[in-house]
Amino acid sequence: MPADDTRLRIAVDVMGGDRAPVEPIRAAARISRETTLDLLLVGKREVIAAELDRVDHRPAQLEIVDAREVITMEEKPRAALEAKPDASLAVAMRAVAAGDADALVSAGSTGAIVLAAAKLLPRIPGIDRAALAAVYPTRKRQSSDDPFALMLDVGATVRVRSHDLVHFAYMGHAYARAISKVARPTIGLLNMGSEPTKGDAVLRQAYAWLDEDPTLNFVGNLEGNDIPTGGADVIVCEGYVGNVALKMAEGVSEVFKGLGKQAFKQSLLWRLGLLLLAGGLRRLKHVTDYREYGGAPLLGFRAPVIKAHGRSGEVAIANAIKVAAKAARDGVCAEIERAVAGFHARRDGSAGC
Amino acid sequence: MPADDTRLRIAVDVMGGDRAPVEPIRAAARISRETTLDLLLVGKREVIAAELDRVDHRPAQLEIVDAREVITMEEKPRAALEAKPDASLAVAMRAVAAGDADALVSAGSTGAIVLAAAKLLPRIPGIDRAALAAVYPTRKRQSSDDPFALMLDVGATVRVRSHDLVHFAYMGHAYARAISKVARPTIGLLNMGSEPTKGDAVLRQAYAWLDEDPTLNFVGNLEGNDIPTGGADVIVCEGYVGNVALKMAEGVSEVFKGLGKQAFKQSLLWRLGLLLLAGGLRRLKHVTDYREYGGAPLLGFRAPVIKAHGRSGEVAIANAIKVAAKAARDGVCAEIERAVAGFHARRDGSAGC
Repeated sequence: MPADDTRLRIAVDVMGGDRAPVEPIRAAARISRETTLDLLLVGKREVIAAELDRVDHRPAQLEIVDAREVITMEEKPRAALEAKPDASLAVAMRAVAAGDADALVSAGSTGAIVLAAAKLLPRIPGIDRAALAAVYPTRKRQSSDDPFALMLDVGATVRVRSHDLVHFAYMGHAYARAISKVARPTIGLLNMGSEPTKGDAVLRQAYAWLDEDPTLNFVGNLEGNDIPTGGADVIVCEGYVGNVALKMAEGVSEVFKGLGKQAFKQSLLWRLGLLLLAGGLRRLKHVTDYREYGGAPLLGFRAPVIKAHGRSGEVAIANAIKVAAKAARDGVCAEIERAVAGFHARRDGSAGC
Repeated sequence: MPADDTRLRIAVDVMGGDRAPVEPIRAAARISRETTLDLLLVGKREVIAAELDRVDHRPAQLEIVDAREVITMEEKPRAALEAKPDASLAVAMRAVAAGDADALVSAGSTGAIVLAAAKLLPRIPGIDRAALAAVYPTRKRQSSDDPFALMLDVGATVRVRSHDLVHFAYMGHAYARAISKVARPTIGLLNMGSEPTKGDAVLRQAYAWLDEDPTLNFVGNLEGNDIPTGGADVIVCEGYVGNVALKMAEGVSEVFKGLGKQAFKQSLLWRLGLLLLAGGLRRLKHVTDYREYGGAPLLGFRAPVIKAHGRSGEVAIANAIKVAAKAARDGVCAEIERAVAGFHARRDGSAGC
């Protein structure tokens, strides 16, 4: 974490994502024009230099770090990382691990990002499971004006233990404070009923620890329907259930859109109705548009990692870079580290509870 | 399970549900007029007799079994069952356990039904975890013309072991064959990726067992988005993840409906658009309307238990009774028993694997 008077530097894996390398390089050029941030552009030197030649940018803020290999979205992450130790993603991770950059942004394969971080980045002491957070829109919440809430983990883990869920709460708490500017984010535990006794022993113990922690604004157990309706600013859960819930919502949206298209084909009246509703649907799209926010944070390491959506273009990646810088500047990882240390000190200094 | 020449008898907990006792009693009267089924109406004798006096019915098919107590939707299931051993639900369960009825229908509290069955009904040999199945509409599936698919478990369990998931597959297979008339229902395992290696050891072992079973039409791992888009006729999972996924979908639908209402208020054009779309929205409602189907089956016991929606009226409860009769007549529980016995015989006769 840089001191306040140090300039921030963000490593960008410019070869990752469906629209790489053009869009990530343009995003970097845009950041150099709009901010004072320094960037490490990791990828094929000649490709980056050629693309930068085409767009207005401030060269003093953009350093190229050559990486000769690329991990594609189609490759199996584990095999790809082993076969390509000098892939842009791995080189960018090593730059962060070495202290040459304060955060990392990639629009590449989620699996590869999670694995590369686990392999190459130092974890926050006391944390043995990192978490990938989903940033998703909810109905208006009383606790925050931010239309987005956080759910974690959604895929970096499968099963977790009670103390992992407490760690996830600290991660979400620190991130929501920095990025959404909520002073005391509400935290919910994803369960199958609201009573403290619901779920299995892992969930009950996590409930008890979250409930007794004065630093957290814990609102108790939440159920599946509380995710989209905005039951809390941060919802914690194991990766299996978070991943299924997130994809279930995607599937339901897809089915609704399909029904709209079918209606469009079947009746002139319905078609007219949909045209009149276009403004409302655009507003809905606006709320769920991934261009509007900066991507999904991978938390638990000593530096923030932001995974931008694979389809991200220039604006979305530039937003992800700004979010990464905000998380680094506000000391999100240091705040998580302090909270985790405090929790384990209260649990008799034991790291394995 | 009755022999083919025996008349079927269904126990109906007429005191359970938001609209009890009037609607369940009217449903029973309707069944007596429309079918040759015999029913045991379990509840307060004088209330049942008085309501039956008001509607056309065939008395020879309707036997009243007096039960002086009622478990309400608001009570804690465990405490209520202990405090009220003669609640209509418990009396109805005991009638099934004693062989006086072939199946049970209740629109009462889900938690109370699950607990009462666990306490009072004999389980199928080899099965130690029952499952509550959700019947939900999907996008058109290739494997079946039925607009509804099954997901189980959605709340009778929290965590499960690999063999429980295999049992759930047999339950869903037998039920879909009987009720949806699909000869070889497709079965999916809810996971966080499609590869056989995804998930934890419980999911991987379940995958292997499901995949090697020639009696099942196993299509592999499915993800959350495959639930509403119709990835399989039957999806198996532990109760925690099934419950969260189901409620997530309810929450997303609620948010969509809310956006519609907001649009309705905000703009005359949008209001007109929604009016023109009313036909399409009605069709959507038709597909998701719980009046159209017979309720959620609770499987794993030697007789079928059908949980009708709490808000069910006469038509929905009559449908639930017909579904319960169909499941009993088609020998769903005997088919599950044979499949489970075959599985455990193949696993070296061990019931605890």
